[in-house]
Amino acid sequence: MIIGIGAGNPEYVTIQAVNALNQVDVFFVMDKGATKEKLVALRKEIIERYVKEHRYRIVEATSPERRREAGNYAGSVEDLNRDKQQVFERLISEELSDGECGAFLVWGDPSLYDSTIRIVGAISRSGRHELEYEVIPGISSVQALAAKHRVTLNAIGHSIEITNGRRIAEGFPNHVDSVVVMLDAQNAMRRLIDEDLDIYWGAYVGTPDELLIAGRLRDVVDDIERIRAEARRQHGWIMDTYLLKRRGDAEDE
Amino acid sequence: MIIGIGAGNPEYVTIQAVNALNQVDVFFVMDKGATKEKLVALRKEIIERYVKEHRYRIVEATSPERRREAGNYAGSVEDLNRDKQQVFERLISEELSDGECGAFLVWGDPSLYDSTIRIVGAISRSGRHELEYEVIPGISSVQALAAKHRVTLNAIGHSIEITNGRRIAEGFPNHVDSVVVMLDAQNAMRRLIDEDLDIYWGAYVGTPDELLIAGRLRDVVDDIERIRAEARRQHGWIMDTYLLKRRGDAEDE
Repeated sequence: MIIGIGAGNPEYVTIQAVNALNQVDVFFVMDKGATKEKLVALRKEIIERYVKEHRYRIVEATSPERRREAGNYAGSVEDLNRDKQQVFERLISEELSDGECGAFLVWGDPSLYDSTIRIVGAISRSGRHELEYEVIPGISSVQALAAKHRVTLNAIGHSIEITNGRRIAEGFPNHVDSVVVMLDAQNAMRRLIDEDLDIYWGAYVGTPDELLIAGRLRDVVDDIERIRAEARRQHGWIMDTYLLKRRGDAEDE
Repeated sequence: MIIGIGAGNPEYVTIQAVNALNQVDVFFVMDKGATKEKLVALRKEIIERYVKEHRYRIVEATSPERRREAGNYAGSVEDLNRDKQQVFERLISEELSDGECGAFLVWGDPSLYDSTIRIVGAISRSGRHELEYEVIPGISSVQALAAKHRVTLNAIGHSIEITNGRRIAEGFPNHVDSVVVMLDAQNAMRRLIDEDLDIYWGAYVGTPDELLIAGRLRDVVDDIERIRAEARRQHGWIMDTYLLKRRGDAEDE
């Protein structure tokens, strides 16, 4: 099973996920090095908090790292996914007995900027393992962000784009009024300060470390960069997301 | 409170929402006429299923209808929202005593194609009522659809657009590879059959009436139209969503 556990707050877990957690024999928890320790701890906290009716094992494995040398982002993610697939296949064949249920817990929602579905799907299609699987949706960081800012993602009748820092650096798309940026390590938002945009920014949303900043992009971009850099230094890692909306829609005043 | 209750399956409700439901004194349930009876019934089912520790009242009100005469969609939604705001304000002043907690239960996620946040925000900013409110995110129909089809929304490193039938009828956007269409009453998908697209379609996703169809758009569009029309006739209403992905990405084979 691929179980979305929501992004940040252990209470974002759904009843469906709780019921699924209680059927799992083996949880595969992928460790991504020291900076992601907190995410591993949160997965274990969720397992302990919600599994009441079932005995389970936790199997930890080190997640392969993306090789960052190449210029081709998609290619390097595909390489990474092949490496991960090998790790996942080894876990499934060595750690799962016939008829046992294994689970990967995915931060946020498995359908959004996560490769677990792709990898488990590839293993299933390979025919090398008898494998049935299902996917349980979870609250994504996008939704957590919007809820905390009490803002809608879309303007009335308009579209939303969900994208990443590399793409937003090329400019604000002209066919939409709202853009969610999921992964922006380079403060690409600064390139957009000449556009008339509102930003709704959040880091560690839903956790006790949550940071939220909203305002006109050009007015708050310095604050966001400073607070973002401080937080990253303090915690050793950052997970942030933001929503950009074109200003001037009366409906959003 | 504005509580997202997920789209379809009562088990999509989060632990956060369950805890919130148990603090509510008055649930405002908006009735939209016979065709939406099922959605009202589902809200009541969720309240009954999850509220264990608290006495509550349910107040039903008839939701104003959108006036469909005008060509301007956004304008007619804004009119509708003003009408709704009047109804919401009346409910809040007449039905809530000081210190009581009222809640609107939103199908899916309140941040996506829903105006409750806008309306309650406008009431709060008007200063006419002392009002504190928070927003609880929920599993959207987009996520339920992707989970049931066991597919990711985005291609690796690429963007997603979330849009509606009127906009997708203008053509598949050329800067993205994945488009989610939330509201398409007119089978606008048919206009895209010359593009090389895969479609992942679902209706009543997460409910016992769920229908799922996936395949190359041009191969399955007739099936989808036929099954959609039949289902609409049978149930008296339909709620469907689909994901379109450009074909030819090796990673998604």
